[in-house]
Amino acid sequence: MEISKPRGTRDFLPEEVAQRRSVESKLRDVVKKWGYGEIITPTFEELELFTLKSGEGIIGELYNFKDKGDREMTLRPELTAPVMRAYVNEMQSFPKPVKLFYFENCFRYERPQKGRFREFWQFGVESIGSAKPESDAEVIALAMTLLASVGVKGNLNVGNLSVLRHLLSQVTADVESQGNVMRIIDKMTKDPAEEQNLEMLLLELKASFELVQKIKAVVGLAGKDGFSAIQKARDIVGQLPELDAFEKTLVLLSAYGIHDYTVNFGVARGLDYYTGIVFEIYADGLGAQKQVCGGGSYKLISLFGGGDVPSTGFGIGFDRIMEICDKTVDQVPSIVLVSKPETHAESLKIASGLRQYVPVQTDLMGRNFKAQMEFANTTGADYVLIVGEKELESGCFSLKNMESGEQISLSLDELMKKFRN
Amino acid sequence: MEISKPRGTRDFLPEEVAQRRSVESKLRDVVKKWGYGEIITPTFEELELFTLKSGEGIIGELYNFKDKGDREMTLRPELTAPVMRAYVNEMQSFPKPVKLFYFENCFRYERPQKGRFREFWQFGVESIGSAKPESDAEVIALAMTLLASVGVKGNLNVGNLSVLRHLLSQVTADVESQGNVMRIIDKMTKDPAEEQNLEMLLLELKASFELVQKIKAVVGLAGKDGFSAIQKARDIVGQLPELDAFEKTLVLLSAYGIHDYTVNFGVARGLDYYTGIVFEIYADGLGAQKQVCGGGSYKLISLFGGGDVPSTGFGIGFDRIMEICDKTVDQVPSIVLVSKPETHAESLKIASGLRQYVPVQTDLMGRNFKAQMEFANTTGADYVLIVGEKELESGCFSLKNMESGEQISLSLDELMKKFRN
Repeated sequence: MEISKPRGTRDFLPEEVAQRRSVESKLRDVVKKWGYGEIITPTFEELELFTLKSGEGIIGELYNFKDKGDREMTLRPELTAPVMRAYVNEMQSFPKPVKLFYFENCFRYERPQKGRFREFWQFGVESIGSAKPESDAEVIALAMTLLASVGVKGNLNVGNLSVLRHLLSQVTADVESQGNVMRIIDKMTKDPAEEQNLEMLLLELKASFELVQKIKAVVGLAGKDGFSAIQKARDIVGQLPELDAFEKTLVLLSAYGIHDYTVNFGVARGLDYYTGIVFEIYADGLGAQKQVCGGGSYKLISLFGGGDVPSTGFGIGFDRIMEICDKTVDQVPSIVLVSKPETHAESLKIASGLRQYVPVQTDLMGRNFKAQMEFANTTGADYVLIVGEKELESGCFSLKNMESGEQISLSLDELMKKFRN
Repeated sequence: MEISKPRGTRDFLPEEVAQRRSVESKLRDVVKKWGYGEIITPTFEELELFTLKSGEGIIGELYNFKDKGDREMTLRPELTAPVMRAYVNEMQSFPKPVKLFYFENCFRYERPQKGRFREFWQFGVESIGSAKPESDAEVIALAMTLLASVGVKGNLNVGNLSVLRHLLSQVTADVESQGNVMRIIDKMTKDPAEEQNLEMLLLELKASFELVQKIKAVVGLAGKDGFSAIQKARDIVGQLPELDAFEKTLVLLSAYGIHDYTVNFGVARGLDYYTGIVFEIYADGLGAQKQVCGGGSYKLISLFGGGDVPSTGFGIGFDRIMEICDKTVDQVPSIVLVSKPETHAESLKIASGLRQYVPVQTDLMGRNFKAQMEFANTTGADYVLIVGEKELESGCFSLKNMESGEQISLSLDELMKKFRN
């Protein structure tokens, strides 16, 4: 009986892996130039880490299990909580900001559907220790630069939750109730019909009619002219220091060359722990699943036993950007050495030399000359080098370019020199 | 309350990750030059995949769990079975040999102890489709070359299970009983006292006194002169075609420049599915846990529903070699830009330019000049660039080498040119 891979997961074969590694490597190159250091955390964590952050409701989506010591564990559904846990355990004394990035797999027990998998990859950063617009702006600019580095044009939506939180605090001080409202607002960005549910919930919470109107106005407040949108927010909620900081973030974004974005006070991110700046980046070509990046500033560390440390971060859905990004892989010419049983050992020595520079295949099947040529053909080798007795005697080897069919004669030295460059 | 990482797992912080990535990248470079393509399989698989391969006994060491669809799953304890499963599902029509490599995490529920972790990393290859000495020799030579590429001198022990299997087939045809004998022989390499258990088990299986003596002689047969060891094996078991192939493998190893090894017919690998060549590589500096690589030729694919396809592969214990290998990381000079509130936006523009070439940090904390200099100091920046009003007006920037203390004055063009190289 044939065993299959688990439902909703994938095998990545060499051609696809090469593309993924090439994209990964471009992202790594950018994020390191911005001074972020990589962190690797365990693939599974204590279940409590994620229920503390997201509530018990998340368990339904998790790969949770009891280990053999009867401890509740789970495969990680995301990386922010593990990175914050590691920060609390091991990095509280590091100079601030602590700038970290990760590229790891995550797991969610979801109904398998197009473009969504149960094991998926996230590329993200966390800038820990600064509550300043400088940190917010860097994080947003980095997200846009990462996407651009792999040919993805992102549509940036930036909001600021402090405005909604300010209004909601007049409705209820209960964090969970605030969270429920935020989740409905998050859904509204995808489904405007949710507006009714928002009204109902706010009235249940005994919000005044005027306050409901204000909240609806803030949720609907969006525009390409960010400074004017911020001014309109001031008109609704009055002077808030967070709005001044938001303005400064926009000024800094323009210093990073980012001028084209939408300020959208309806971006709510659906999670309780975001406090100030929130942003989402959408890309074309992905249908309904167009969000490729989400992030914001948050306070999570105190939840896990650390101090009240402000952070800003984001996660990029790596699998999603793989569908639309530039997947070009740097091509290195490959060579197949064709030998006879009598010359096979010598072909291995030549292979060892050439492998300093390029990928080389030698015969592993004991095939005859014709079958070896066929192997070179079907595997798409760029060159074939004949290593026969005549060639070894004369020291003169014939190299065939498999695309052009051109054949040239080279000494071993000339051969090495050709591929060294 | 502070939440910790799960017992027996690790967080890798940036400095260590950089070292691990540097070693990984050297290994990748080598394996690609040998024409192997990377495969990525899911982190968890159906439990049956591993019990089919290793028996129900392995469950005690696994992180197995039921998913929400009540299917028995497990985090992978190793990669050979998943790669073979993926081969059966998706690669049977590929031209042979199919040469694959992987670098992935694995999971075992073991008592945490020095140098052994519950999540650990394996770097390995599988060459699928050839039963020839050419494939065995390439795989062994590749393992040695990989270790050498990161400065690990491996002591190679090569055996061939066909000799023991030939003798055991005269004792019993039962695969499980043969497996039990092999596991005791595997333990004998670490603990000679196991010899008594071997004798007892063989006598239980009704082996003749003469056969027991022959088996013990083969298990103890080892020597630096491989050809003479093979001849001695012939003296015990007679002519076997596998011994001729073993000789050929040694001839090919010498073409790869590998002359220093021990032929050891006692290498048993403790797993049922190895058929011919088996090898283990030990390294100094690791105490009792000195094995850094193990592999051999095997037939596993028919177990998973494919044909009777011969393969050769190995796994390198990445965490173990990290303890003894060359961990040098290519150093790229890093720059911290020091600015004032008035010049901060301009410093971001300069940072964007410099980030084409080198890692750059700008102030994210709203710090004053002195605190920014201190940050550069404590984080070990190589250079500090002052971006003040005077500098922006004159177009002349002062770059301080933090190691030598030397300070030079540069235009923006000169600055870019300096770091481009």
